[in-house]
Amino acid sequence: MFEKNMKLAYLLDFYADALDEHTRTIMSAYYCDDLSLAEIADGEGISRQGIRHVIKRGEEQLEFFEEKLGLAARHEQLSLAVESLCSVKSSLISKGLSDECELIQKAIETIVGKGG
Amino acid sequence: MFEKNMKLAYLLDFYADALDEHTRTIMSAYYCDDLSLAEIADGEGISRQGIRHVIKRGEEQLEFFEEKLGLAARHEQLSLAVESLCSVKSSLISKGLSDECELIQKAIETIVGKGG
Repeated sequence: MFEKNMKLAYLLDFYADALDEHTRTIMSAYYCDDLSLAEIADGEGISRQGIRHVIKRGEEQLEFFEEKLGLAARHEQLSLAVESLCSVKSSLISKGLSDECELIQKAIETIVGKGG
Repeated sequence: MFEKNMKLAYLLDFYADALDEHTRTIMSAYYCDDLSLAEIADGEGISRQGIRHVIKRGEEQLEFFEEKLGLAARHEQLSLAVESLCSVKSSLISKGLSDECELIQKAIETIVGKGG
């Protein structure tokens, strides 16, 4: 049947902007606002089957982007790096090395900042 | 006229995999192997005008991806974070803090690793 796949909801976080507006609106209603196909169909004034088709194609695009560009996998790697840097920071704080801590903090902010 | 834009060659590094194979082959011949339109046209057995059209469309796709996903801009940010972490590492080496250095080195490897 047609089931929500939470991995695709996660990929939508990374690639929504690269989808066309119509697809993005419908994918977002389905995955973020958790509306049913029937509810989205009512709102958009197109058939339930039409919505299903847009979602299916959008899902294929998300999977294509992740396979080719790997933003979500990359985000997970960077999260591990940040975790590790946080533990270095704690250790340096306990040694009173505030200059190094500050540089690490700025690096962490850059890594978790825009785009991922 | 039709000129090579080195910013697009840079974007190609990030998004080549998301282009279709035909476009990727032609963009790569033009931007990476530095062939002329005429040389690529000869090799592909299509007109110079046809090659020009594929490159133009490919360039639009690269610019669209960067505008929407920002991988190249993100890469530059991460390079700054790595630079900063390298200087922290040097400072910690001089203080004999090898455990912290090792963690920072691993984080750097993760950041510069796959995908960016």
